[in-house]
Amino acid sequence: MSMSPLIDELVAAFRCLPGVGQKSALRMALYLLERDREGGTKLSGALSRAMVDVKRCQQCQTFTEAELCGICASDRRDPKTVCVVETPSDLQAIEQMGLYEGTYFVLMGHLSPLEGIGPEEIGIDRFCKLIDKNECTEVILATNPTVEGEATAHFIADMVKSRNVLLTRLAHGIPVGGELGYSDGSTISHAFQGRRPFA
Amino acid sequence: MSMSPLIDELVAAFRCLPGVGQKSALRMALYLLERDREGGTKLSGALSRAMVDVKRCQQCQTFTEAELCGICASDRRDPKTVCVVETPSDLQAIEQMGLYEGTYFVLMGHLSPLEGIGPEEIGIDRFCKLIDKNECTEVILATNPTVEGEATAHFIADMVKSRNVLLTRLAHGIPVGGELGYSDGSTISHAFQGRRPFA
Repeated sequence: MSMSPLIDELVAAFRCLPGVGQKSALRMALYLLERDREGGTKLSGALSRAMVDVKRCQQCQTFTEAELCGICASDRRDPKTVCVVETPSDLQAIEQMGLYEGTYFVLMGHLSPLEGIGPEEIGIDRFCKLIDKNECTEVILATNPTVEGEATAHFIADMVKSRNVLLTRLAHGIPVGGELGYSDGSTISHAFQGRRPFA
Repeated sequence: MSMSPLIDELVAAFRCLPGVGQKSALRMALYLLERDREGGTKLSGALSRAMVDVKRCQQCQTFTEAELCGICASDRRDPKTVCVVETPSDLQAIEQMGLYEGTYFVLMGHLSPLEGIGPEEIGIDRFCKLIDKNECTEVILATNPTVEGEATAHFIADMVKSRNVLLTRLAHGIPVGGELGYSDGSTISHAFQGRRPFA
């Protein structure tokens, strides 16, 4: 089903995007060619700049093109409270809430010995230096509630334990707007164990 | 929810793609940054080349970077049979069937007086010149079975009528694998009117 070498190349290139198969890739390519060449050119420029220039924040490891990301560089964020997340999108999800005023540390993954991802790969030594340097008072473990995420949280907890730092973990429970009948047993048991006085 | 100017720009740029909202755009940007910078760079190159170099085929109006598209340039396609479609993706859908050996004419739209799209915009004069030049024997009207598509088909039929050309239209009917109970009345009435001797 080849169209022309250039269009075929563009369709193939679109398939590197997550969740984009042959049909969506073809649709995207034809859409841009037909209706939005300007948008396509802008996307090309934004992509090439971002792929080259976006590095990691020197402090929290999240993506940024500057030396420090906006949050680490801000003087309105409390450097004594650090929230540990797995990925920049987890960070985004917490930022979206708009309530958190501390800083972050982005592991860019989780411990996974089978895939050769150990403490060094997720920057645990850098994290320890950071909490010592900033004299942190609280570390919020916000890794995902998966096997690997829990293991990573436990590992970090062990590293931090010896320091005089409050360790907290995000609460598990019934999601707001969720229904008990559709929640799994493990979630309900966490919700039960974590029940709180009704205000 | 800004991350860094470059990443924000990339996310905004991804939103020009069809079916991509804020969440998918963010996911795409972070995915490429995290796991496939090479793919992102390739996509950027393919995009910029395609947006600049892809033009229309001189003969059938479909997208190509050459003067003639692969089908028009091929000597294995019958130039005396022309299938009229609305878009390059319609052309692709027919090519996928792998049975058609004629050529195409791509209108790049349909007649739509309200949007200011008249016969000139969809290249009807070029189409008439083409069928005269190639001494066409059959014109297959494969515009979509929508109000505008039908109107466009009728308009082309009127233009071609005076010539000694067989005019055909794709059959309407129950889709293969479809169920009668889920078909709309108009489709069933077409299927009834177009019923054929059972071989």
